[in-house]
Amino acid sequence: MIKRVNHIAIAVKNMDEALSVFENLFGLKAAHIEELPDHGVKAAAIPIGDGEIELLEPIDPEGAVAKFIERRGEGIHHICLEVDNIDEELKSLAKRGVELIDKVGRKGLAGKVGFLHPRAAKGVIIELAQKV
Amino acid sequence: MIKRVNHIAIAVKNMDEALSVFENLFGLKAAHIEELPDHGVKAAAIPIGDGEIELLEPIDPEGAVAKFIERRGEGIHHICLEVDNIDEELKSLAKRGVELIDKVGRKGLAGKVGFLHPRAAKGVIIELAQKV
Repeated sequence: MIKRVNHIAIAVKNMDEALSVFENLFGLKAAHIEELPDHGVKAAAIPIGDGEIELLEPIDPEGAVAKFIERRGEGIHHICLEVDNIDEELKSLAKRGVELIDKVGRKGLAGKVGFLHPRAAKGVIIELAQKV
Repeated sequence: MIKRVNHIAIAVKNMDEALSVFENLFGLKAAHIEELPDHGVKAAAIPIGDGEIELLEPIDPEGAVAKFIERRGEGIHHICLEVDNIDEELKSLAKRGVELIDKVGRKGLAGKVGFLHPRAAKGVIIELAQKV
């Protein structure tokens, strides 16, 4: 079951520049910045209400976020929906024939996470996350 | 001041198809569907947690959402951040030289709303909304 939107992720070329945009526009600041080599990005989490905006800067030129920016430019990359049990949710989706990037959860900034294939949801990249 | 993410909007070609995708994947259903001729769209609000996913289907082929789909395909169109006072917020942004689509709030699905120009935020379309 979907509990809430955990975060919205934005692909950016330069993290520092993007952070200063959000601070200058709205006074919003990152609470946490971390490199996630498995995802090919450096990620910053900016808290808003009970959710977050996540900025993603590619650190791997062959990674999905680098490719996204190459193809579409900077912009909103994915939305992340929070679930109670990521592995059960992914299993249930797979059983119903939904195309997945991840069949089991793996470490992400939002906890234990898994991605659906964009073909599964009208071109929208959806991440599911279970807090850990 | 930004209170929370009000919604994430997704541009879709066919509202009924998109609604059944979200229902089939996650059991999520629209609480409200409305035509917004001023914005050139039919909009559906799907509640998630204390926020929403908003689906936008163009009803005006010259409108911004129709043009977005033409240029980039279906996908995430904008994020909407909730504020206490939309007109004050837009005025404060304008005073600081931020490029805006709307200088004062106007009616939207999320209340009284106003859009920043995508150039203001790294290509991300940001809507501000005040509940009414």
